[in-house]
Amino acid sequence: MASTYKPEQARVPPAVQLPVPPVTKFKIALCQLSVTDDKERNIVHARRAIEEAAEKGAQLVLLPEIWNSPYSNDCLPVYAEDIDAGGDASPSTAMLSEAARSLQITIVGGSIPERSGDRLYNTCCVFGKDGKLKAKHRKIHLFDIDIPGKITFVESKTLTAGDNHTIVDTDVGRIGIGICHDIEFQELAMVYAARGAHLLCYPGAFNMTTGPLHWELLQRSRAADNQLYVATCSPARDAGAGYIAWGHSTLVGPFGEVLATTEHEETIIIAEIDYSQIELRRTNLPLQNQRRGDLYQLVDLQRLNS
Amino acid sequence: MASTYKPEQARVPPAVQLPVPPVTKFKIALCQLSVTDDKERNIVHARRAIEEAAEKGAQLVLLPEIWNSPYSNDCLPVYAEDIDAGGDASPSTAMLSEAARSLQITIVGGSIPERSGDRLYNTCCVFGKDGKLKAKHRKIHLFDIDIPGKITFVESKTLTAGDNHTIVDTDVGRIGIGICHDIEFQELAMVYAARGAHLLCYPGAFNMTTGPLHWELLQRSRAADNQLYVATCSPARDAGAGYIAWGHSTLVGPFGEVLATTEHEETIIIAEIDYSQIELRRTNLPLQNQRRGDLYQLVDLQRLNS
Repeated sequence: MASTYKPEQARVPPAVQLPVPPVTKFKIALCQLSVTDDKERNIVHARRAIEEAAEKGAQLVLLPEIWNSPYSNDCLPVYAEDIDAGGDASPSTAMLSEAARSLQITIVGGSIPERSGDRLYNTCCVFGKDGKLKAKHRKIHLFDIDIPGKITFVESKTLTAGDNHTIVDTDVGRIGIGICHDIEFQELAMVYAARGAHLLCYPGAFNMTTGPLHWELLQRSRAADNQLYVATCSPARDAGAGYIAWGHSTLVGPFGEVLATTEHEETIIIAEIDYSQIELRRTNLPLQNQRRGDLYQLVDLQRLNS
Repeated sequence: MASTYKPEQARVPPAVQLPVPPVTKFKIALCQLSVTDDKERNIVHARRAIEEAAEKGAQLVLLPEIWNSPYSNDCLPVYAEDIDAGGDASPSTAMLSEAARSLQITIVGGSIPERSGDRLYNTCCVFGKDGKLKAKHRKIHLFDIDIPGKITFVESKTLTAGDNHTIVDTDVGRIGIGICHDIEFQELAMVYAARGAHLLCYPGAFNMTTGPLHWELLQRSRAADNQLYVATCSPARDAGAGYIAWGHSTLVGPFGEVLATTEHEETIIIAEIDYSQIELRRTNLPLQNQRRGDLYQLVDLQRLNS
């Protein structure tokens, strides 16, 4: 019967088969870092955390959103770096590259403010264990919110949104990248799942209003709906900051189950990912065969037009 | 800037404007009914619950999935009714029609097994306060699951899936209907939101495995992602049944917040819905203006081709 429902047409182009990952079981580290207004300190501090994570066996290290700068529209332009120029123009990513190479790990480098020409982006760099930049994701959904008396923030005042989905094959599987507000958009996770992602990584700094409301909910639903792993990493909370981060970095498994999490203090979460769980869950509950491509379709315009 | 991202193109056809509902605030009742193998008793019992709900002020009553029959592949054909023939051929829906008319309420009548020709469906009927059948939703995603040692159920052995999205204008707003496993598919909720739904109603009998894993998670994420109300209604738990229902009927608001819920015993939840919260939340966090129609699109094939 299934074929009359055209499940394969529920994704356009049709979903690719889940690739065989280079490794099935490995440790991921979520470095919930404290962030100060001292950029040099932030870089040295992040470097130490990455090293500690590698010493504890992590093959993949995830950093928070905006870990080299306070998160404010005033600071972002000042702390921004020219990632494409590299070297001295981008000490933060130079450190990530060096750390990945010398520690022989994959780093999903949270995000930093990026300057490119006269534009600023909120950008995540992924480095392979050879130290090479494998992918660069510019946050595609900017965070504009206005809940009077609770939280008002207009990221689009300062930043430009990126124009690309970012999914990358690494030594620890195929990883789709989103930054913070990107997680509010279920379509992005659906696109990545259809492109064969094993894991979605969302560096993110939710706040004291959206954090308790949505942070865990969104991670768990992206994981459960798409039957893959989701990892998030927040800065540690600084109650004195202008924008107060929620914390609660988390790893979620492909049934939407929280595998590891924390509160808001600085910490490094080390947790195991086992990609065999993805196939198991998709066999248990074969959502991919039950979708109704005769009734609805999710179109990945970039893949369709490429 | 927003227009370059083509947010309106993230839904195809573009999302309709949220209609002004006939009523802004009203009470909904979720009747978490006990179900036995005595169909006549089930009908009388449901009638009493609906009456009690109306007496407590409910203008909308939601019943559970398969409330007139035990939920098993053996029972479904035996308890099935010919809804289109009506009258004596469908005592369950005849009761719903009479109750809606005499109590002057809208009823989203959970679901019953429907016989149509030589096919069986899992079907939800919506009655207006004039007692007329306003809509009939046949479950479009059948529940086939196999988690060895936990839960194995192959609904598609017995049932045929429906072929239509079902959204209906009632005296208590525009309501999108899904039945149980339909809630696992985020696309259906997205389609309904784009068609201007205020409320999604999911009669559903999750089980003791998928219940704790996914029931609340899915309701909250459908509500939060689409910024609308979600109401679910389960049968009460019968520990002696072949298929043991999770219970936990729930009302969720447009930020994904649980407004009312319960455990697994028989009960009637009465809770208030305030549709002004939908506009408020969409103003606070304007996801509809932030989607990237230049990167992805959700296509409603039925609306596109109608």
